[in-house]
Amino acid sequence: MSEKISIAIDAMGGDNSPNKTIEGVKLFIDKNSKNNDFIINLFGREKDIKNELTKYKIDSKFINIINADNVVSDNETPLTAIKNSKNTSMWKCINYQINGNANISLSAGNTGVLLVISRMILKMMDKVSKPALAGLWPNQVGTNVVLDLGANIECTDENLVDFAELGSALYKSLFPNDIPKVSLLNIGSEEIKGTELLKNTSKKLKKISNDDNFIFNGYIEGNDIMSGQSNVIVTDGFTGNIALKTAEGTAKFINKNLKEALTKNLFTKISLLFSYFSLKKFKSRLDPRKYNGAIFLGLNGPVVKSHGGTDSLGFFYSIDLSYKIVKGKLMRRIKDNLNHLQNE
Amino acid sequence: MSEKISIAIDAMGGDNSPNKTIEGVKLFIDKNSKNNDFIINLFGREKDIKNELTKYKIDSKFINIINADNVVSDNETPLTAIKNSKNTSMWKCINYQINGNANISLSAGNTGVLLVISRMILKMMDKVSKPALAGLWPNQVGTNVVLDLGANIECTDENLVDFAELGSALYKSLFPNDIPKVSLLNIGSEEIKGTELLKNTSKKLKKISNDDNFIFNGYIEGNDIMSGQSNVIVTDGFTGNIALKTAEGTAKFINKNLKEALTKNLFTKISLLFSYFSLKKFKSRLDPRKYNGAIFLGLNGPVVKSHGGTDSLGFFYSIDLSYKIVKGKLMRRIKDNLNHLQNE
Repeated sequence: MSEKISIAIDAMGGDNSPNKTIEGVKLFIDKNSKNNDFIINLFGREKDIKNELTKYKIDSKFINIINADNVVSDNETPLTAIKNSKNTSMWKCINYQINGNANISLSAGNTGVLLVISRMILKMMDKVSKPALAGLWPNQVGTNVVLDLGANIECTDENLVDFAELGSALYKSLFPNDIPKVSLLNIGSEEIKGTELLKNTSKKLKKISNDDNFIFNGYIEGNDIMSGQSNVIVTDGFTGNIALKTAEGTAKFINKNLKEALTKNLFTKISLLFSYFSLKKFKSRLDPRKYNGAIFLGLNGPVVKSHGGTDSLGFFYSIDLSYKIVKGKLMRRIKDNLNHLQNE
Repeated sequence: MSEKISIAIDAMGGDNSPNKTIEGVKLFIDKNSKNNDFIINLFGREKDIKNELTKYKIDSKFINIINADNVVSDNETPLTAIKNSKNTSMWKCINYQINGNANISLSAGNTGVLLVISRMILKMMDKVSKPALAGLWPNQVGTNVVLDLGANIECTDENLVDFAELGSALYKSLFPNDIPKVSLLNIGSEEIKGTELLKNTSKKLKKISNDDNFIFNGYIEGNDIMSGQSNVIVTDGFTGNIALKTAEGTAKFINKNLKEALTKNLFTKISLLFSYFSLKKFKSRLDPRKYNGAIFLGLNGPVVKSHGGTDSLGFFYSIDLSYKIVKGKLMRRIKDNLNHLQNE
């Protein structure tokens, strides 16, 4: 294996693939080709992939194709996945990490199956009690890492402490010059609030809070997730999933109402002429495609899950995220954090 | 007691009271005086209240003042509240329901203390396993009732079934011509998703779903809360609190960014001249003051909690909500729903 960052991509997962995945690859190469420090491994039907590569005039020096005839169906459940998915593009994409052929795997396919297969193939890291799905989320001053988003609907305090270590390692890999500030999601910021589980977790996090690891900021309420006071938000997978989706639904609701208000009549349409560039910037700042890509942490190799319904630009962001994670030495940072935890 | 709707108001709770509470009363009387079917009972320091009533030129025929020298402090905890708050405006305001002197009580004071005092004075209804705090929330076609918002951080399936009955009774009292459609908040819409607790609750709700009671729509995910497909969203108090506050935080984040975008330079300021009325309507539709007032359900009398930090307009909405709830025969509807549940 070369020194280059090797990214394994399931070219067939999600809506409108491999068209959107390969167009995403094109956007990624356009942005990063000058670095010349990566190789993209594409898994799927070779013929279809080659057609798309030709269409987008992609330089073959960045590309390695591994044929896989089958694709994991949207209807496959985690229960049947292991039996049915051995020759799929998703399976081969994850499996490619096993012999050190790739540093990271990326798929826009069936989430439940991806989690099961990844866990089976890559296995959990020795010191991790449960793996977690982490997402990125905008805040007033930058970006949050939020986890777990749904891999574990019930958690122990030990799991939540691990999530804090995994999430802050991810944060450091993406923003190496910044300090991770961890908060526990709760229904009040006072110490007496919340479940016994959260109180126990809080005590443990206080003990391991320090500049080398992460700063523990205590509890955070839902309305402060985006305030920027913390940048790693830890919660169980049930609550995290509800919070993320509620935020998505709220943003969609507001944007729909705003759009209706601004295209209502001739006057508002004229107003758009004057505010066009500013509103475009506003929209771009909050574009969910920029935050596309949930990271499955705690296995012996990172796996990124793209939204199935995103487009080529959204898929580009998930490739770019995968590249940054490897460049930022995520696995090294996770090991450091976990060693730190064990030495406490 | 007359036939009039009698509303007990803690005039001293929340920021800037009794000024904001009495200005809220004025707005309420301006809107509803022609109905002449209500009496407002104000609890607090008589002299202060009278000064405000004079200032706002409020017709005394709608008002009854009950003096209370003390006010529940913001620092009081639920643990010390019962001992310390017997002569407070809040205590007297709740207690006024006991002898049938009021149909409903309203306070903008300390939430934890209000829940404890209300439960102690009014006591739980016979057939209710746990009381719940319900809130109103906009959706694409109207309004949602969401409960529990934080009264119970851990719940059983029996509690959640009760919340469905309580919430749909509230919905019917506010929107008597509409059918309550109940959904359980979960991390997926498929039957296999979620905790055992939710699966058991879902089975029970299916059994009691019918036109006279409520229609059970199954699970709902966070991103669909505001879609309008359901109008009564049932969840435990931990999850409900996180969801509500995350939605509030997201709305605040978006509005702040939008405001910055639209006041950025001369061009965007010109654009505001053209979109002013339309944006004002957009803002008004989503004004959180319109949804001010959480309803404590399951006691032998309804209690409404206003946001402490709201202004006179927000407080007006919580008085108007209290009035509508009584007019819509909430307590009768809760009893009907619970009888229905028992006869299943």
